[in-house]
Amino acid sequence: MKTHLYSDLFARVREKRPLVHHITNYVTVNDCANITLCAGGSPVMADAPEEAAAMAAIASSLVINIGTLHASQIESMILAGRTANERSIPVVLDPVGAGATRFRTETAQRLLEELEITVLKGNPGEIGIIAGVEAEVRGVDSCGMSGDPLMIARRLAKSLGITVAVSGPTDIVTNGKQTLLVENGHTLMGSISGTGCMAASVTGAFCAVSKEPVTAAAAALAAFGIAGERAATVAHGPFSFRMALFDELANLTPQDLAAGARIRAP
Amino acid sequence: MKTHLYSDLFARVREKRPLVHHITNYVTVNDCANITLCAGGSPVMADAPEEAAAMAAIASSLVINIGTLHASQIESMILAGRTANERSIPVVLDPVGAGATRFRTETAQRLLEELEITVLKGNPGEIGIIAGVEAEVRGVDSCGMSGDPLMIARRLAKSLGITVAVSGPTDIVTNGKQTLLVENGHTLMGSISGTGCMAASVTGAFCAVSKEPVTAAAAALAAFGIAGERAATVAHGPFSFRMALFDELANLTPQDLAAGARIRAP
Amino acid sequence: MKTHLYSDLFARVREKRPLVHHITNYVTVNDCANITLCAGGSPVMADAPEEAAAMAAIASSLVINIGTLHASQIESMILAGRTANERSIPVVLDPVGAGATRFRTETAQRLLEELEITVLKGNPGEIGIIAGVEAEVRGVDSCGMSGDPLMIARRLAKSLGITVAVSGPTDIVTNGKQTLLVENGHTLMGSISGTGCMAASVTGAFCAVSKEPVTAAAAALAAFGIAGERAATVAHGPFSFRMALFDELANLTPQDLAAGARIRAP
Repeated sequence: MKTHLYSDLFARVREKRPLVHHITNYVTVNDCANITLCAGGSPVMADAPEEAAAMAAIASSLVINIGTLHASQIESMILAGRTANERSIPVVLDPVGAGATRFRTETAQRLLEELEITVLKGNPGEIGIIAGVEAEVRGVDSCGMSGDPLMIARRLAKSLGITVAVSGPTDIVTNGKQTLLVENGHTLMGSISGTGCMAASVTGAFCAVSKEPVTAAAAALAAFGIAGERAATVAHGPFSFRMALFDELANLTPQDLAAGARIRAP
Repeated sequence: MKTHLYSDLFARVREKRPLVHHITNYVTVNDCANITLCAGGSPVMADAPEEAAAMAAIASSLVINIGTLHASQIESMILAGRTANERSIPVVLDPVGAGATRFRTETAQRLLEELEITVLKGNPGEIGIIAGVEAEVRGVDSCGMSGDPLMIARRLAKSLGITVAVSGPTDIVTNGKQTLLVENGHTLMGSISGTGCMAASVTGAFCAVSKEPVTAAAAALAAFGIAGERAATVAHGPFSFRMALFDELANLTPQDLAAGARIRAP
Repeated sequence: MKTHLYSDLFARVREKRPLVHHITNYVTVNDCANITLCAGGSPVMADAPEEAAAMAAIASSLVINIGTLHASQIESMILAGRTANERSIPVVLDPVGAGATRFRTETAQRLLEELEITVLKGNPGEIGIIAGVEAEVRGVDSCGMSGDPLMIARRLAKSLGITVAVSGPTDIVTNGKQTLLVENGHTLMGSISGTGCMAASVTGAFCAVSKEPVTAAAAALAAFGIAGERAATVAHGPFSFRMALFDELANLTPQDLAAGARIRAP
């Protein structure tokens, strides 16, 4: 792998400070704002129908997260997403809890139908549900999908014409043709709330400065994963891990990413 | 006291990882999610009327908190609560700020009328207001109740046929017949926002794996209190205390709970 | 400068523990609650139209922040603001993102027209937009205003008959006649989300115990800035800085404020 691609992207995030517009849940929204800053982007949250499109129009990417979905939010997601699509602003969708309730499953599907999503990022359960294979989501936790995640992700990406990122011990990033596996990360990332949401935010920051979503998503997940690996070395528990995770991502340099990224072809 | 009851319960939380559905405020919601994880449960937040009942149906307990109450949320609380009641899923109610405004007082009363609450957990002011004695709440802070809290809690529990937990230097947990006093905790817990809400979340996690609400609530408050005691030994101020509080609860073992619980009869 | 004015004010906050009612955004609301506690106040968040006025009526100050503005929230801001005005309860307005979308700009203007604001606190871009000079806001980040901030702030304060606080390396606090410059603070404060919002909360706590908004706002910004300076000495990155910021404000004494405040006339 040409690791300079990743470090160049990361350097561009830091240089351009892209505005990442979030329409997201109220549980992890502060984490998303702060991790976007640590990655090098500038976060803004705005989900009122009165301004969702206007904010998307000035953003460099849009992150849509259905973690605490409300009807009025869906309208704003569509409005902001359409504006982003018209202006070729990349859109990251995190279908949090798809599969747990019909409301979430159907909304995720509707967003995928009505909007051009750049990167769909979810856990195996969520992606499995969307792909229509046997899968389970309990609350916002994945209970896994049946079948080969790599094959399912590739097929889903091809059929939707988008990039799909499946989180896991090894993250899968694929557009159906090109596939990258990201092996960075640490099990402690599962011990706190919000790492999935944060991964989507970092992906949004990287997509904002790239025209290659597979590369951008892989680089983002590797950067976030390396921060997790480093944070784990100083943690005494989940919350000191969490503090270190933000610090480490902020302190991570493009050179660190090039040196530490474990991104490979399948 | 048979402390193995508490450690067994805690071990069961860690083993079963119960899904704790929250309909809660947007101030401390992230704390509630993370403390539920640290206790051993799996948190999910969902308060749209479209999915509140569906999410409650797959949960192992429901925590209702009126800290930033909205009209549409009340509907969801009722929908989720009824579903929980039908399926014998325990419901914890934290009447945050009852007494401060009529909207909160009346909503707390309505929830107690329309739903079968398993554990009502509040500060002395909130519980006093609900019990109809002279009491005061300023914002979300208790200014205390007049009269003997133990007697008032017992009477309220008996009249409602539920378990009542009153926070304080010594927590009171009672169903009117059985009463437990929990002496764990630390004054620093009052120096940060959200410890009351978090206590309700931990109580929800313990109630999810028990059929004895008094025991479960007392064990939960003791576990959370011990984490607070340990956190206080390393804190330099309220926020380093807060970080340590999460770490310590996550690191607490059932054996630690058995050894550290200061639970006694009145 | 008579630094004892500032330390006296701070001592009064600590003694009176004023109730600071917030109608604010869901991104940094937890930070606002905790920083209010660290300053010495008691935070309460309530933005339902059913209780906004009732909560404002029992508060010692009201902080209005439009960081994630919704239509229903505007109604509550007006209701709470009118009640505060009727009772001479000070109102702090943080026009987050004014200039980024028309919805925010117009709402900030409407609030300034319909309510008597005590302190308008914003970044240079937001204040510039409201003052009607050339200015830019990207998301919630200031891109600065054209012209001399001091002159513009003074003119705006005079024309509105209120106190204006402009954040920056040197904060400007002015009512058009009296002006104070606050040189406390640290660049790391810009590395995390929410320091602007938190500054408004601390200002709300100080205004609650003072009849001189210029003095109160300057003292609040100095106290918060000194906490930032101290936190920077122990930080390893933005999130350890953030933790220390809360700790340091909580540990700051009125004497520390008197000794460390760098407040001067222009």
